[in-house]
Amino acid sequence: MTRAGNIQVDTGLGVTVPKGFRAGAAACGLKETGAPDVAVLVCETDAQAAAVFTQNRVVGAPVLVSRERLSRGRAMRGIVVNSGNSNACTGEQGLADAREMTRLAAEQIGCAAEQMLVASTGVIGHALPMGKIERGIRAACAALASGPEADDAFARAIMTTDTRPKQAGARVQIGGRAVTIAGATKGVGMIAPNMATTLGFLATDATVAASLLQMMLCRAADATYNCLTVDGHTSTSDTLVLMASGRAGAEAVAKGSPEAETFEVALAAVCESLARQIVADAEGGTKVIEIRVTGAASEAEARRAARAIADSPLVKCAFFGEDPNWGRIVSAAGAAGISSEPETMRLMLGGVVLFDGGGPVEADAKRLETIMKAHEIAVHLDLGAGTGEARCLTCDLTDEYVRINAHYTT
Amino acid sequence: MTRAGNIQVDTGLGVTVPKGFRAGAAACGLKETGAPDVAVLVCETDAQAAAVFTQNRVVGAPVLVSRERLSRGRAMRGIVVNSGNSNACTGEQGLADAREMTRLAAEQIGCAAEQMLVASTGVIGHALPMGKIERGIRAACAALASGPEADDAFARAIMTTDTRPKQAGARVQIGGRAVTIAGATKGVGMIAPNMATTLGFLATDATVAASLLQMMLCRAADATYNCLTVDGHTSTSDTLVLMASGRAGAEAVAKGSPEAETFEVALAAVCESLARQIVADAEGGTKVIEIRVTGAASEAEARRAARAIADSPLVKCAFFGEDPNWGRIVSAAGAAGISSEPETMRLMLGGVVLFDGGGPVEADAKRLETIMKAHEIAVHLDLGAGTGEARCLTCDLTDEYVRINAHYTT
Repeated sequence: MTRAGNIQVDTGLGVTVPKGFRAGAAACGLKETGAPDVAVLVCETDAQAAAVFTQNRVVGAPVLVSRERLSRGRAMRGIVVNSGNSNACTGEQGLADAREMTRLAAEQIGCAAEQMLVASTGVIGHALPMGKIERGIRAACAALASGPEADDAFARAIMTTDTRPKQAGARVQIGGRAVTIAGATKGVGMIAPNMATTLGFLATDATVAASLLQMMLCRAADATYNCLTVDGHTSTSDTLVLMASGRAGAEAVAKGSPEAETFEVALAAVCESLARQIVADAEGGTKVIEIRVTGAASEAEARRAARAIADSPLVKCAFFGEDPNWGRIVSAAGAAGISSEPETMRLMLGGVVLFDGGGPVEADAKRLETIMKAHEIAVHLDLGAGTGEARCLTCDLTDEYVRINAHYTT
Repeated sequence: MTRAGNIQVDTGLGVTVPKGFRAGAAACGLKETGAPDVAVLVCETDAQAAAVFTQNRVVGAPVLVSRERLSRGRAMRGIVVNSGNSNACTGEQGLADAREMTRLAAEQIGCAAEQMLVASTGVIGHALPMGKIERGIRAACAALASGPEADDAFARAIMTTDTRPKQAGARVQIGGRAVTIAGATKGVGMIAPNMATTLGFLATDATVAASLLQMMLCRAADATYNCLTVDGHTSTSDTLVLMASGRAGAEAVAKGSPEAETFEVALAAVCESLARQIVADAEGGTKVIEIRVTGAASEAEARRAARAIADSPLVKCAFFGEDPNWGRIVSAAGAAGISSEPETMRLMLGGVVLFDGGGPVEADAKRLETIMKAHEIAVHLDLGAGTGEARCLTCDLTDEYVRINAHYTT
């Protein structure tokens, strides 16, 4: 359990903890390992829904279908997901297959296909084996249930190269009633900002209008999921969905109210936990690196600098080697198209100043060694040029990342 | 030997082949291996000089000193170089040390310090051990000579993680006289566009005014060095210098003349050979990948797409694994901030179409396997949206790259 402000986030809370939600999963043979690869998350009643999708121009068919469904403003009943095949770059057939997935799930649940969202993750460019998918969706719907087992089954079925399931939830009081926000997410490669990165599914039993839900989800994603980069490669399938059942019986959250603020802080805290779980399980990663850039001429420059540091293979390899090779950090920022001069920069690793006023600063080698050996490392670069700030969450680059990604489809 | 147009490029021709140049090298202990790490390239008489430098905001002291010297428009006599320490992020002391390097070399050669350029490459953020450097410069100047041995010694002394020396030259007729352009370069990490990437030193015995030399060098670098990316990390030290002795006795190359065109084509061919040698020896790399993007809405979009493909760790790992995982290529382009839609895209690997009109194209698996196993692989993405074109030369990403860069300073 971690605390974000006064919000307690609990990774024991999964997608069916908010009232009104059930989840089911099944293995249909998309993954060679025989692991579960189809999942369904369903709300018993109509739910308000919001989503953030990848900003990639090349998007999977499920993104196109889900985007279109949400744009109609209709209440939703659930989402059907598969892992092992992203149904991206699959043309007209892919679109038909994504729609068919929602139809098959809706048939089992008893709702209109238009009330189902769809998401897929996995290899790009291969048609879905629809026979398998159909059997998988039927089995997942037959398994629909609430409780820790259903939560875990759902979180596992959406995994690709993840080594462990990822979920988080928080409880807050809205108008004297306990309201829960909880969700599951997956990583752990092809992850970069300009998204919701990867797949994330959030449920709440709060009562929130779709438009307000969308605004709050965008802001929460921007502060958390959009700060993640594992490998700087924005996926074709990124989808972060939030559904609100209203089943906690609390009064509706009104825009601009203290309740809205409470809800949004809790939502951001849950997203932050999920985002950190993704980075902590990043493909081949051994360390979580939080990069803060302050003092930039603008927020855009701060973001560019933080992203350039986080995406530099040289910086990432140095962290893997536990080598405080700070010159790589400063040079990555310098090449990011920023207007700051090295003379005003100040770089800290774990609070230890290493570069200031254009030159190196002698640091205690022992302390630096301890900082570099830690699992989480904080990098803070102040550019000394303004008030722009940004942060990036990333991981190190390891031989294991190369091993995983050199042999993923074959 | 390779041919670019009708220009024959010969990797047997080094920096002292053009008349008027001598080179010397020495080991002064900057490299732990004891390998040569100081080099001097000298012109017997005043030379016209041009250079392209890194676009990083954080630059090494030698870049600041050399830039300033060239901006005065004075004729140059040579360049002093060290490897093993980049003298970057070293503050005022670093600037004083870079100037002292030129003074020491000038003293031995018998010219003004202001007629010497300076370049350094290696780890960032450490003060130069000037005692060693002084001994190294004296020894390198004492060894000044012309011929294949001097060429090889110079090319080796500028190496960092390079596994082999890199040189190339070409001979052309200018007004009935044989003129030579030849040079040496080094890589092989922290390499990305917006530069001259890395260090490159070119000599010619043609007679060319500095302003024309500069224009031709910029264009040649843009078409060759600026298309290279090993790891997307623009260095602090990138310097590409071209000096012209005029000692071939040919008439001066006039701007806009057929002779200028001949010279520029030869210069670009030599740069292309050097750039390819860098990618072929890229840190940990096992393959040379040439990425061509055509049909972009603009040249800028073509460059962004080519660069995004070339810098994607997922794409690079797939090539290492000889895995034709083309979805990664298309998705990398899609996330590059381009305006093209997937429906108009067409992707070819080694001439085999894999993605067209928004969907996959069945390819001959055997032929694809042969293409992926080759040392050089051509990627061609047509965006179907305009006439913008660009190319990028890159390498694969391997566990060896990670090994090299996880343990470089320690």
